[in-house]
Amino acid sequence: MSIIALLTDFGLIDTYVGIVKAVILNINPKAEIVDITHQVLRGNINQGAFLLLKSFKFFPKCTIFLGIVDPGVGSSRYPIAIKTKNYYFVGPDNGILSLAAKEDGIEKIVVLENKKYFLKNISSTFHGRDIFAPSCAYISKGQPIENFGREIKKIKEVKIPLPKITKNTLYAQILYGDIFGNLITNLEKEVLLKFSKNKNFIATLGGKKITKIYNFYKEAKDEELFFIEGSFGLLEISCKNKSAADFLKIKNENFFKNIVKIKCF
Amino acid sequence: MSIIALLTDFGLIDTYVGIVKAVILNINPKAEIVDITHQVLRGNINQGAFLLLKSFKFFPKCTIFLGIVDPGVGSSRYPIAIKTKNYYFVGPDNGILSLAAKEDGIEKIVVLENKKYFLKNISSTFHGRDIFAPSCAYISKGQPIENFGREIKKIKEVKIPLPKITKNTLYAQILYGDIFGNLITNLEKEVLLKFSKNKNFIATLGGKKITKIYNFYKEAKDEELFFIEGSFGLLEISCKNKSAADFLKIKNENFFKNIVKIKCF
Amino acid sequence: MSIIALLTDFGLIDTYVGIVKAVILNINPKAEIVDITHQVLRGNINQGAFLLLKSFKFFPKCTIFLGIVDPGVGSSRYPIAIKTKNYYFVGPDNGILSLAAKEDGIEKIVVLENKKYFLKNISSTFHGRDIFAPSCAYISKGQPIENFGREIKKIKEVKIPLPKITKNTLYAQILYGDIFGNLITNLEKEVLLKFSKNKNFIATLGGKKITKIYNFYKEAKDEELFFIEGSFGLLEISCKNKSAADFLKIKNENFFKNIVKIKCF
Repeated sequence: MSIIALLTDFGLIDTYVGIVKAVILNINPKAEIVDITHQVLRGNINQGAFLLLKSFKFFPKCTIFLGIVDPGVGSSRYPIAIKTKNYYFVGPDNGILSLAAKEDGIEKIVVLENKKYFLKNISSTFHGRDIFAPSCAYISKGQPIENFGREIKKIKEVKIPLPKITKNTLYAQILYGDIFGNLITNLEKEVLLKFSKNKNFIATLGGKKITKIYNFYKEAKDEELFFIEGSFGLLEISCKNKSAADFLKIKNENFFKNIVKIKCF
Repeated sequence: MSIIALLTDFGLIDTYVGIVKAVILNINPKAEIVDITHQVLRGNINQGAFLLLKSFKFFPKCTIFLGIVDPGVGSSRYPIAIKTKNYYFVGPDNGILSLAAKEDGIEKIVVLENKKYFLKNISSTFHGRDIFAPSCAYISKGQPIENFGREIKKIKEVKIPLPKITKNTLYAQILYGDIFGNLITNLEKEVLLKFSKNKNFIATLGGKKITKIYNFYKEAKDEELFFIEGSFGLLEISCKNKSAADFLKIKNENFFKNIVKIKCF
Repeated sequence: MSIIALLTDFGLIDTYVGIVKAVILNINPKAEIVDITHQVLRGNINQGAFLLLKSFKFFPKCTIFLGIVDPGVGSSRYPIAIKTKNYYFVGPDNGILSLAAKEDGIEKIVVLENKKYFLKNISSTFHGRDIFAPSCAYISKGQPIENFGREIKKIKEVKIPLPKITKNTLYAQILYGDIFGNLITNLEKEVLLKFSKNKNFIATLGGKKITKIYNFYKEAKDEELFFIEGSFGLLEISCKNKSAADFLKIKNENFFKNIVKIKCF
């Protein structure tokens, strides 16, 4: 059984995701399709790439990931398929696949250009349906990616910003906020512990202070802001019994703009 | 393997969709269930019928479509099953199935009245669970639709409004708006090209002007409104890097009320 | 084929549900995963327990229910698995599983503590991924629940409030409101009929009056509030062609606070 895992910004209101699944099942009725999420922030390639990076390893080997956040659909960006050490990645060459594919180890990249594996009529607005879904389905049926088009050597990459240290200050960033209001930073616990030499620190964000790293939610006081090592393997800013995002008035749209400033004393 | 494809206005917050799937799998554990969408505008039969029409052809032959937008549940409208040239359609006889079934070619219509294929207790508010889901499951197990009840010859139909030409003006309508803010009209590209004799035109909607048909999003200028042939096979009004619906202040609820007025010169 | 049915408050925006499914399929590629809902009100154990109670019976025997509404994740509450007469239930021991498991008949309860059946690294914030999903997957592969840990005899329970009668007044409660705006009460039709001796009654909620029980939506007048026996097997307060919740200005967050006062005359 082949798993095809979908990550898009198509949302769940329209019929776009359903149609992508229909096209896949029409070609490979045995494909197992799993939704990772369809609610990446609209057109936000960075967020899509980050979420795919943090999800792919939990899937069985040989899973085919279809990642579509494609504001440039119909433009000159290539549709591509990537074979990595353990997986396949299919989508537009705009960076959406880059973090996960690099992490797993890229073995081969091809441009999807063999029309034999497309739907008959290619729209200029829905390559998910017309190019990517059928390509995934044929890969899941065992078609080697060499057959889809010529090999290329490079893909467009996105970068996750790294924390920076200037003088005595550590600058971290909010990468993502989940529906519980947890704010996922780009800071690993070890980095903060090393920076603060296991001593006291004061982090500031949105005019509020954070001074603790807890191991469990239960350690915090009501409405206290704190760091906790979350399920992404990164420090998250949480607030006990409350949404930290609401508490700090940080909107989802602004995430990549929010800097956490940390000093130790 | 039998595919049962669901299109409803049940939403994804309540447990209704999950229970429909449970009932199907209880009768046919091998059924493959695919969600088209569960977020048709509440009670909007026209929109449901339009979305089913534009989705069904992408599914494998013999797919059973369960279409439920059923504001009259428990009233005298029949529960029906339709065999068409390539598919099956199950749902209330209120028009929701009519556009897709007619397009594919209706071969037989039956009223679902054989209680052998219902759940034991029939509520007056949830025929999706009690009548439609089990009927779909039995069809997917090979039960011929003749067994479900008496044949009828006609179904209730909804109509998609067609563009109209009065004197020198072409009147089109907005049929649907997607989450990207694209406004899908009832106008085919060829109709507009023929009307404008491949010359200039001015379309007006919400006090704004549209004068171009582009082939790709990339051709537009930032925040420019334009027509593009979209994935529904119809002209859509889009806005570069913006939601056209937001830009034109058109709400989802009002879609069937919005007229695009086009003159050529 | 084993069905694993999921009910959580994870929402569908983040990748959490997708990752839970990935972990399950990595262990048991043949598992059939069904979403009941992922939009239980955040942290609302009562609501989750109620929705699971009202859903489980529609699933095939041997279905494994994974119920996660877990505001105390990482605290001392046990992760548990329950074998009941016909099903399995997996989740935190905070009451979320209690109503459904008791209804079906509890046969054995074990604490999930055998790390052989966990992911290698256990986070303190996402036991759904690290403990519950793999445990479900191993149960679905036939692993007896005895193997997961020591038996316990009791689980934490939540209670659905029952209607109360004081003097001449019947007090009912709103347990849940669905997206159609129907307000599901804790009142069975028979209880109200017995109380009112099949005569007239006046129910009041939010300053409005309800005086009728209808069998079908069609019996009501436009914008009339009325009781109807809904698909939960309980009386629901509905409003013809309108959301009763909107009409009564009852917010989803407040549901457990809303009392319906009924007098007969």
